[in-house]
This record gives sequence, C-alpha cells and structure tokens, in this order.
Amino acid sequence: MHFTSEQRLDDGVLARDFTLGEIPGTLWTPASDAPVPLVLMAHNNGLPKADPRLVARARHTAARGYAVATIDAAGCGDRPRSAAAEQARADLRRAVQAGRPADELDEIFESLVGPLVAGAVPEWRATLDALLRLPDIGGPVGYSGGWAALGIRLAVAEPRIVAAGFFAGGYVPRAQREEARQVTVPLLFLLQWDDEGNPRRRALDLFDAFGSKEKTLHANLGGHTGTPSFELEDSCRFLDRHLK
Amino acid sequence: MHFTSEQRLDDGVLARDFTLGEIPGTLWTPASDAPVPLVLMAHNNGLPKADPRLVARARHTAARGYAVATIDAAGCGDRPRSAAAEQARADLRRAVQAGRPADELDEIFESLVGPLVAGAVPEWRATLDALLRLPDIGGPVGYSGGWAALGIRLAVAEPRIVAAGFFAGGYVPRAQREEARQVTVPLLFLLQWDDEGNPRRRALDLFDAFGSKEKTLHANLGGHTGTPSFELEDSCRFLDRHLK
Repeated sequence: MHFTSEQRLDDGVLARDFTLGEIPGTLWTPASDAPVPLVLMAHNNGLPKADPRLVARARHTAARGYAVATIDAAGCGDRPRSAAAEQARADLRRAVQAGRPADELDEIFESLVGPLVAGAVPEWRATLDALLRLPDIGGPVGYSGGWAALGIRLAVAEPRIVAAGFFAGGYVPRAQREEARQVTVPLLFLLQWDDEGNPRRRALDLFDAFGSKEKTLHANLGGHTGTPSFELEDSCRFLDRHLK
Repeated sequence: MHFTSEQRLDDGVLARDFTLGEIPGTLWTPASDAPVPLVLMAHNNGLPKADPRLVARARHTAARGYAVATIDAAGCGDRPRSAAAEQARADLRRAVQAGRPADELDEIFESLVGPLVAGAVPEWRATLDALLRLPDIGGPVGYSGGWAALGIRLAVAEPRIVAAGFFAGGYVPRAQREEARQVTVPLLFLLQWDDEGNPRRRALDLFDAFGSKEKTLHANLGGHTGTPSFELEDSCRFLDRHLK
C-alpha cells in the first residue's frame, strides 16, 4: 500500500490517497493517539470514491473516531473504463429511466453488478489486510455503504466485519439476495421509502431475509438521494454501539 | 389540576401525581430554571400510567429536559372499571391469543378501542390546557406513545402538537387509519418487525398513509415488548430536533 497524497482537513481528519497494486483508494483517519476502529465505506456501483456524498460521510465518520477507507471498483473513478461495463451501465440507466418492470431490469442488472461484486470482494479483502497492518488502525471492522450487494458478500465472506450498515438496494443480484440469510452480524438497513429507483417491496423483503438477530430498519422520505442528515449521525451511533 | 403527591427522583426529576376532575395523571419534570417543552406520553390501551415501561420512558425523557405527562384512560389504572370495556378487552386478548385473522379481530377491536379513543381525546386536551398553565412548562408540545390510535386523533385535532412518535399498532381503528392522511407533523414510527400481536403489513400501510412530509420508520427485532433500549435515545433525539 503506497500513499500518494496526504491532506490535513480542518476537522483534524487526515485524508490520504493510496494505491494497492491497481486499486486506488482513500483513507480518512482522525487525530488520535490510540489505534481506531476501521469502517469500510463502499459507494454505489459506478460512483467514484471522490463522490461528494461519500466523502462527506467518510469525513464525518472519521471525525467521530474511525478510520474510514474506500476504493474505486474496476471501471469506476480513477480506474480504466471497461467498454462492456459502461455499456451495461448505460443500458441499466436507460431501462430505469424508461420505468421498465423490475424483472426486466434484473437481467441487465445481474449482468452488470454480479461480475462487479465478484471482482470487488477480493480487492476489498486485500485492502482490509493492508489497512490492518497500519499502526493507527486497530479494528474491529465495520462496513457502511451504499453498495448493499458488496456489503452482503463481504459480511458473509469476511469474519473480521462485526457490524454492517447498508443503504437499501431494491436491486441486489440474486446471489446476494439468497446470501442475505447468512449475514448474522448486527446491521442497520437504511431505506428511502419513496425511492423511485428502488422497489420498496424488494428492499423490505431483503431486510426480512437477513439472518442477523439484531437488525434495524430506518426508512425516510425524500427520494433516492434525499436521506435526512440525521441518519448520518444515526449511522455513527450504530457503529459506536458495535465497534467501540 | 390538583397535585396529590410529589417525589424527587435520584435523576433530579420531579414526579407528581395529579387529578383533573376524574382524570388521574402523572407529571415528570426535570430540574430546570427555564420552562421546558411538554411531551404527552400515552400508553397502550389498558395499561396503567404506572406501567413500569411507561414510567422508565417518561423518567428518561424528563431527565433529557422535557416535562412528560400521562393520564389513565377511562376504565384503566386508577379509574373505575367498566364491565363492558373489561369484557371487550378479555375478548380481544382471547382472540389474539387464539390467533384469529386480523379481519375478525377488527370488529372486537373497533368496539373496544373506537369508543376509548373518542373518550380519551377530550381528556387529553383538557389535561394539555391545564399543563400549559403551569409556569415550568413552556411548549412546544409533542406526543410520544404506544397508543397510535389516540396519537393520530390527537395529532389531527390538536394544533399545539408539533411532532409525534408512535409505537406502531398494526391494529388501529378504521377511523384513525383513514385519519392518518391528515397527520402532517414530523413523526417517528417505531415498529417491532416480529411483533406477534401486530400485523406487520398493516403497520407498514399505516406508516405509508401518514400525510407528513417528514416521517421516519424504525423497525427492530425482539417481539412485541423487545424494543431495543437505544430506541429510547432515538426517540429523545427526534424530540430534540422538533421541540428544542
């Protein structure tokens, strides 16, 4: 893991870009003498790690006493584009905008997100290995992200993750919808009740499917990107209960 | 309003029993120099104001800087029993325990809770008038309670209520299910996902029906009485956002 840039932000958080092989990432760490817990913060498929909403969540969470890390998925952000993935994304956007039925979207979705999840999981685990070797990161490890499919796969595959916060995806590949039963860590599931881009019924079914004994659903109005700011604080309080 | 007893609790909260005509109530107030906002805290139909879970919520909320008031509904707690209401309650308990379908329970439920809500609302409003004349209570006023039907009726009838927290009832009389559309204050709707006594589908439909632009749903596991303790803190933070 090589750090390529370093910036001290006004809230005392240190933001460092890094590369791990071909993987570009960013790590935010608070001013702290002791090692801090780690939060893996993924973003929805296609969004770059520099997405302003992701960066704002990461900074706020880091200022609350966490190391927060994110990486760009293959074909996203600072990584070379794949013609196939770009095509699939464009198809999916068109189909969603055209209001195609969920079952129809599924096929495009599986073909786009299925492989992306499969490819991203080993990269996140390699990043986790490297991060936990840093002296200022202690663990335990949590997941908090808008990419529910990745979070489900990681929570099942990665025993070091002890709590997970998901921003509900109504669209999650079949494999992860089935895998949800195997997720047993405490989880916070955040849903936009009137999210035009995510079928509510499916999101509720996904929440119902998780195997966790402690799972909490938060739902709000405001559309796909209208999550109220107080949910950011609620997410931190969820992490505090399980990582501190 | 006559205070009949007064007790200073170890958390600095002053607990006073009062009577207003035939209505017995309890008021919890924090140690404060300035007038504090008021929270009307109702309990599920049939539970006395002395119910330990209600008292614990009231004390915690008062210690957070609120005046908290509750009263016994007709035929509950310290008030004379009504043979008809007792009978209806017994019928309802039996029917729920026997796992009768929701539609069948509705009839018993309407006959029990409909009149109780109609009778309770003027009593709560009279209590609110009297409480707001006390020098140590300022307002604004919030509602926080397990009795969703009463809360819906009060939130529609009482313009002084600016925010409402409901513990989801899957069973709410038809009149209040329809009235939910007219509720426009910010609300927090708390649901036990695996509540054997409350049909989940109905609770979700009720949440969907509320007319409020700002409404938040919290759902957890743990059965009817298994609400996690952190939800008490979340309820206070909801009140803080709207009453302080």
